[in-house]
Amino acid sequence: MSQQEFRLVGKYNGPRITGAKAAAGAIKYGWDFNLPNQLYMRILRSPYAHAKVTAVDASAALAMKGVHGVLTPFDFKDSPVRLAGTTMMILPYDKVRYAGEEVCAVVADDPYIAEEALSKIKVTYEPLPYVLDVEEAIKPDAPQLHEGGNIVRTPTTVTYKVGDTAKGFAEAELTVEFKLKSQTIQHNNIGTYAALVSWEKDGRLHMWTDAQYMHGPRNTLATVLGIPQSRICVHAELCGGGFGDKSGAQRCHILAAIFATKTGRPVKFKLTREDNLLQGLHRWTCVTYFKFGLKKDGTVTAFEAKNYSNAGAYYSVWGSGMATEQLYIYKWPNFLVDCYDVYTNTPRTGPLRCVADPQSCWMIETAMDRLAFQLNMDPIAFRLKNNMFTQGDKDPVTGNRIPSIGQPQCINRAKELAEWDKKWKPWPKTKPTSGVVRGIGVANHCCGHGAGSLANAAVLVMNPDGSLTIYTGATDIGNARREQLAIIAAEHLGLPFEKVTVANYSTDTGPDSGATVGSRQTKSAGNAVGVAALQVKDQLLARAADRLKVTKEELSVGEEKIFVTKDPSKSVTIRELVASAPWIIAAGQWIPPANTTQRTYGTHIAEVEVDCDTGLVKVLKVVAVHDVGRVIYRKSCLSQVHGGIIQGIGMALQEELLFDPQTGRPYNASMLDHKMPLSSQAPEIVVDFVETVEQPPDSYNHGAKGLGEPPTSPIVPAITNAIANAIGVYFDTLPVTPDKILKALGKV
Amino acid sequence: MSQQEFRLVGKYNGPRITGAKAAAGAIKYGWDFNLPNQLYMRILRSPYAHAKVTAVDASAALAMKGVHGVLTPFDFKDSPVRLAGTTMMILPYDKVRYAGEEVCAVVADDPYIAEEALSKIKVTYEPLPYVLDVEEAIKPDAPQLHEGGNIVRTPTTVTYKVGDTAKGFAEAELTVEFKLKSQTIQHNNIGTYAALVSWEKDGRLHMWTDAQYMHGPRNTLATVLGIPQSRICVHAELCGGGFGDKSGAQRCHILAAIFATKTGRPVKFKLTREDNLLQGLHRWTCVTYFKFGLKKDGTVTAFEAKNYSNAGAYYSVWGSGMATEQLYIYKWPNFLVDCYDVYTNTPRTGPLRCVADPQSCWMIETAMDRLAFQLNMDPIAFRLKNNMFTQGDKDPVTGNRIPSIGQPQCINRAKELAEWDKKWKPWPKTKPTSGVVRGIGVANHCCGHGAGSLANAAVLVMNPDGSLTIYTGATDIGNARREQLAIIAAEHLGLPFEKVTVANYSTDTGPDSGATVGSRQTKSAGNAVGVAALQVKDQLLARAADRLKVTKEELSVGEEKIFVTKDPSKSVTIRELVASAPWIIAAGQWIPPANTTQRTYGTHIAEVEVDCDTGLVKVLKVVAVHDVGRVIYRKSCLSQVHGGIIQGIGMALQEELLFDPQTGRPYNASMLDHKMPLSSQAPEIVVDFVETVEQPPDSYNHGAKGLGEPPTSPIVPAITNAIANAIGVYFDTLPVTPDKILKALGKV
Repeated sequence: MSQQEFRLVGKYNGPRITGAKAAAGAIKYGWDFNLPNQLYMRILRSPYAHAKVTAVDASAALAMKGVHGVLTPFDFKDSPVRLAGTTMMILPYDKVRYAGEEVCAVVADDPYIAEEALSKIKVTYEPLPYVLDVEEAIKPDAPQLHEGGNIVRTPTTVTYKVGDTAKGFAEAELTVEFKLKSQTIQHNNIGTYAALVSWEKDGRLHMWTDAQYMHGPRNTLATVLGIPQSRICVHAELCGGGFGDKSGAQRCHILAAIFATKTGRPVKFKLTREDNLLQGLHRWTCVTYFKFGLKKDGTVTAFEAKNYSNAGAYYSVWGSGMATEQLYIYKWPNFLVDCYDVYTNTPRTGPLRCVADPQSCWMIETAMDRLAFQLNMDPIAFRLKNNMFTQGDKDPVTGNRIPSIGQPQCINRAKELAEWDKKWKPWPKTKPTSGVVRGIGVANHCCGHGAGSLANAAVLVMNPDGSLTIYTGATDIGNARREQLAIIAAEHLGLPFEKVTVANYSTDTGPDSGATVGSRQTKSAGNAVGVAALQVKDQLLARAADRLKVTKEELSVGEEKIFVTKDPSKSVTIRELVASAPWIIAAGQWIPPANTTQRTYGTHIAEVEVDCDTGLVKVLKVVAVHDVGRVIYRKSCLSQVHGGIIQGIGMALQEELLFDPQTGRPYNASMLDHKMPLSSQAPEIVVDFVETVEQPPDSYNHGAKGLGEPPTSPIVPAITNAIANAIGVYFDTLPVTPDKILKALGKV
Repeated sequence: MSQQEFRLVGKYNGPRITGAKAAAGAIKYGWDFNLPNQLYMRILRSPYAHAKVTAVDASAALAMKGVHGVLTPFDFKDSPVRLAGTTMMILPYDKVRYAGEEVCAVVADDPYIAEEALSKIKVTYEPLPYVLDVEEAIKPDAPQLHEGGNIVRTPTTVTYKVGDTAKGFAEAELTVEFKLKSQTIQHNNIGTYAALVSWEKDGRLHMWTDAQYMHGPRNTLATVLGIPQSRICVHAELCGGGFGDKSGAQRCHILAAIFATKTGRPVKFKLTREDNLLQGLHRWTCVTYFKFGLKKDGTVTAFEAKNYSNAGAYYSVWGSGMATEQLYIYKWPNFLVDCYDVYTNTPRTGPLRCVADPQSCWMIETAMDRLAFQLNMDPIAFRLKNNMFTQGDKDPVTGNRIPSIGQPQCINRAKELAEWDKKWKPWPKTKPTSGVVRGIGVANHCCGHGAGSLANAAVLVMNPDGSLTIYTGATDIGNARREQLAIIAAEHLGLPFEKVTVANYSTDTGPDSGATVGSRQTKSAGNAVGVAALQVKDQLLARAADRLKVTKEELSVGEEKIFVTKDPSKSVTIRELVASAPWIIAAGQWIPPANTTQRTYGTHIAEVEVDCDTGLVKVLKVVAVHDVGRVIYRKSCLSQVHGGIIQGIGMALQEELLFDPQTGRPYNASMLDHKMPLSSQAPEIVVDFVETVEQPPDSYNHGAKGLGEPPTSPIVPAITNAIANAIGVYFDTLPVTPDKILKALGKV
């Protein structure tokens, strides 16, 4: 289906529905809900990175006027709860495993009393030796965090193997080895974890929060409290930032629900910035040892990599490890990648926008650039030399046919838009020592996100006036869920955009429509809506065929009418068809087909200026081209790319959560010190999209893949490769801060 | 299906889910919602019963600090809106038609400013002659309210005719004639009309209110504002009293929506008690001339009636007129009833719990009692003499077979419970003149309510833990909608009550499930839920058949399992069947079948004490037996009967909205003067139910008919007949107040 045939898909470009109110601060997030008689919860955290909790004396706290309850690890001796890949206790009964872990919780009439009560809880710790570094933690004599040792056995101790690396290295004319290390970053959502939890008049537990997944926390709370899922309603209309950190219930939500149940009063909480930086999930540190074999013409003959991922004290269900998809850009004949995930006494790890890809993409695309540098080859020519997967190729590991690949188109289009051939100059022969120098860098990206990896459901109701309401549990986390799903349904049904509304306010407005994670929902929820829309269409056609005395096959849909294709003067309006009962109601479900492999692709090219006197890097311009299958709502596609690039600048140049090796405590758990990029750092951004021609047969969403996460990944190596192009130095660690640059240039 | 086979239907008797919170005042109704920056609306009303509005000067009001808008009839020159059988303007452009009609509206920063602004709006009226009395209004020279004259032509100018009354009167041995007149009553909901209306962040208009029908006001506002229905969300979780007066948008809701649109700010309002008594719908006054022919053995051979219903200034879509169903208790061989509905300069009329039945039931059952009195026959014997319709009979007018009739069982059971044969004594030969005397009275009732007269839809979702959520737009107006629908679904699916939840908070939580009026929802919504539950069941059976390698027909449902009927050890839990996608989601719809006539029946017997010195009547005991088809949730059936009886005491003995003939203005539009019964007036109430054996083939709700309204009707003639039994006087008008009794007894 070519672009021209669409009426709304890729063309509707009205303003974001919630945009103006969001900009005006007129939207309620997790902290903004209140109920009469509510209590405030605060959480006490461990100052130790590893310690037994031998006793808690909460009597002084409980004696305070206005304090209504304290929960300690001793209330949860056997309370396994699966919030992560590692099963956790609701509070850590046996021991704390990182500095900042939750130890006790208190509720009081106001937040100040609650805060004061925390200081009166006496916790007796028996400190244990701790380990922060992943390579230290893997050693046999390292302090052990969990029974079974520090190596996470499943699901992410993985080996990826293609061909025969020994043979590949034998064919090589030179080998290159290096070690790369990425950093720990917290999502640092503007809206920290916050919720209001209350047993309401309908005999059900209600939670108002911001979440990427409404039904997930509902189901977790049901399990913990031992009540049916139907007796819980989670309200999560909009999200004050998520990026993977708000996909399920956290300990704080569970504790608030337990307090609400015990006290019979509403309980609300909001984590402080420090709380949130320590309690949330974290992008994990990766350490990878690479060895490449290549020919002098640039052909990679083999590579081996050994990857150590720091899983933190608990790892998330989404796994840490190396992102395999990064391995599926180039047609490498022989490779072997071993991944180890290892517990350490650092905070929990989990997905942060693109999960394992930002680390993996940085490493692979840094490696490719270093190899090009080694041969003094144009980095794009070097990449093209190593063959890219194209439409119709098979996945080298699974053998599945990959239905949609736009990678070569991405790099070619980016090269053109960035005027690469004009701007790229070989690396400087000698390092510059002062002044401002420029460089340009490129990186490719491939990930499995956006492939719609989970089942999804949506209910569509035609209203009697011919307008449509979509009932879904898919949250709008800032990703224009409303607009995209409305466009998808409106396109199918010949309706104007304005006549389609998406209701997605709580678990009571729609069925479980999966988590808004993994760049998934344009595909998953979009397909479920598409399936339902086609059911609605079929019913409309049947009614129209009956009215117009023709067959369904003779009819078309458009302009709020069903008309005879060969004689459009014979028509009936949708409104006429739905004005009276029986109504048209359709429940659409989409189940990801087995044995298919869909991936998204992209290329970023960054131009930077490096100030050799201060070490400061300024990103001047980024060209970003992504293969999204199909653009549904261009405005939100652009904003995903813009946002991803700015987030990537943080990873490339400045963000890192640091731990004091002497205490195991974080150095910089504050907004001031855990430096996010400022809007003033935003470069010029040029965006284009590749729409892959062939679509999988199940593209009820008109062929879109996801885009939420991918833009975060290739920007990082594009920037660091541009820095290398400017100063001739590749850095082995992230972020590339001014001190590292000055040191590399011999200035300090 | 006999009672014994049910597991929950008629047996589940846990507490009302919202009961404790409602009793504690912890529930939010229409007035209890607030948004930042909200405006307050107040409405100016006409002091004239009939007048042209020739000019409005709002400049002084608009000049006040804090006033943000005024709407006048001149803003709505051509704004027809169908809020009723009579098309109204949004504000009455041409003229006002009753004292209390809305003329202007104002919004201001606080309600006090708004109130003061009302006093600064100068409206110039040109008073017109008015008419209050229905028999005066029908005269050709009466002041005319609407183009086309005062007689409402459609749909309620009706003639009911069976047999040949001339022939019947020829057979009669005596004729009896009298005229009866019922009064005007307002619903007087504890929660007066109130709402908060706001354009919200999702680009949609939201209204928080209390309503009997969520989708109705949504659709009206969409029409008035010219926006798609999908762009409006009405939140109406619970209702502070409805009784027929909160079934749709009123002018106040429309005005608030217009102000919200014009100002861009949230607008809230709450009517004062006086506002509400004048603005709401009203039970209309009926005047009926009866002529009966009968034989001395008690056989009625013919009757004719001429009924004049006071339609007020505007009548509701539900029509006024005589309730036809009252004519279908007894097998009268010949009758002729002519009904006229006539406009007068009194407030709008519409349904008030049982619509036209309370008036009609009082008249017919008073008539039956007067005839028995005439012959000095036991009133129950007299009624039985006139044959009652029984199971399988045909409707005398339509010829349709009536599938479910429990009338004879009701009267026999009530007679037994009330110890009628022991307690009934013939009427006193002479009127008592002092002291307290006792009497007992009976009345039958039949109505078409509870038959589920509108289409209905519900969406059911099985949650992954095997619990069920019912998504419906059917509001819970105090009628235990949650419990009833949960029982209906749980019974079908072998689930415990606790695992089924009803989500019915807004038009975003469910499809249009019709208005909760006409005692309809246990049948209509119950059937839609039943249809959907059977779809869910079918899917469960299919999945279980696949797992257990048997056919669906070999399986049964129970205890959260699907098991092989002949070998229950072979089973699979529902939870196992639904734990993973595809989910089970079912959209059920129920359309009332054509050409069936379903009715509910009942008998009340009341014992009263009349104090001949004060004229005060005390209702001592009421026996109420209703044919409800099937009891679903006994607790709420009982509370419907209790509430109906107490409301009926008001109609029988004390409630009436009075108009000053000199001005056309109401005398007593206040809670103090429009006397509702007090809880201290509640009599002993004995309730029983008849469950009719045969059910119509479409009883997906396990055979229940409705009960919301019926208990309000027979209590009125049962009381007035008991008064007659005590003092030997039948009154021609309602209410039977102490002054009327004292006058009848010759005491004043």
